[in-house]
Amino acid sequence: MLPRPLQNFIDIFSRLPSLGPRQARRLAFHLLSLDEGTLGRVGKAVGELQKLDRCPRCFFVKEKEEKLCRICRNPKRDPRIIAIVMKETDLVSLESAGTFPGRYLILGESRIGELGTGQKLRLKHLASLIHKELGGKAAEIIVAVPPSSEGRLLMEELHPFIAPLAERVTRLAHGIPTGGEIEFADEETLKNALLGRR
Amino acid sequence: MLPRPLQNFIDIFSRLPSLGPRQARRLAFHLLSLDEGTLGRVGKAVGELQKLDRCPRCFFVKEKEEKLCRICRNPKRDPRIIAIVMKETDLVSLESAGTFPGRYLILGESRIGELGTGQKLRLKHLASLIHKELGGKAAEIIVAVPPSSEGRLLMEELHPFIAPLAERVTRLAHGIPTGGEIEFADEETLKNALLGRR
Repeated sequence: MLPRPLQNFIDIFSRLPSLGPRQARRLAFHLLSLDEGTLGRVGKAVGELQKLDRCPRCFFVKEKEEKLCRICRNPKRDPRIIAIVMKETDLVSLESAGTFPGRYLILGESRIGELGTGQKLRLKHLASLIHKELGGKAAEIIVAVPPSSEGRLLMEELHPFIAPLAERVTRLAHGIPTGGEIEFADEETLKNALLGRR
Repeated sequence: MLPRPLQNFIDIFSRLPSLGPRQARRLAFHLLSLDEGTLGRVGKAVGELQKLDRCPRCFFVKEKEEKLCRICRNPKRDPRIIAIVMKETDLVSLESAGTFPGRYLILGESRIGELGTGQKLRLKHLASLIHKELGGKAAEIIVAVPPSSEGRLLMEELHPFIAPLAERVTRLAHGIPTGGEIEFADEETLKNALLGRR
């Protein structure tokens, strides 16, 4: 019933996270109501994501033409303190608290507290960085996973990999409500969680 | 903190309906996790919306290279029966019930039951079509607005414009739950609402 470009848009956007078929349809009609210039800017914003890829050091996002992401490039960030987070959005939320002096490793999401191949590769990469640059031991590794049963399982899975790599292995303080998600915590809660780490 | 193309994407998508800043951020990182081919297809799907514009007859969406939308082009649709809907998504939902034999007018959304300039222009356009093609009277105009207090206000506002233009002015039967939205009704409810119109 709908013109092909519209149906195609709805099919593609329905499959994206945080959008179902109805939201995709609404979004499509909203975009069609915009003037051509604004619609052009929306299209360009998607196209320009192709200028980005992953930081080879921490796996966060960076511009392709740059060697490392902004955090790994920043000489003021302490390379001896490393926070392991599951998702990019968790890193963004922790950064907005503004109190973390170290760097990150994005682990990637796991199936119910189990480490997959991709995650194990990233941990090996972390181990080799620590060997090359920090003489085999980081000062601290913070496992910044949520205090859910899934997070606790993941923490247990991670521990044997991480324990030999750091003087101290810590986790975020229980300022974050149990069962909650890191990316939904407010900045104050995240600040307290960082300060109270043990 | 984020690379410019990423922040730009988040800024633009945060402003779209059914997406807030957090959803836009999630969507961005999801898109970045796709391979280049898939990301390219998403960008193309947005770009191709520029091939669409409005049907000059009913104001639904059509391909630019076509003169009318698929419904207005269909000779089997009865031009003497016209449903007035507020939004394109309402038309799509009514069509999926598959029982409506007539055509449409998309009125556009109104501020709390008040007709704006754009809506009045569309009603004038409808009047001139009815004069030119149907000798001044349609067989029936169905006002397909939800049975909310807003919809009732709009129905009252519309009535003086529409009454002289049709043998019968009807509204959808109260099969649709009061306070509900047309686009959220299931197909069976919409079928009943169409059949029970009075």
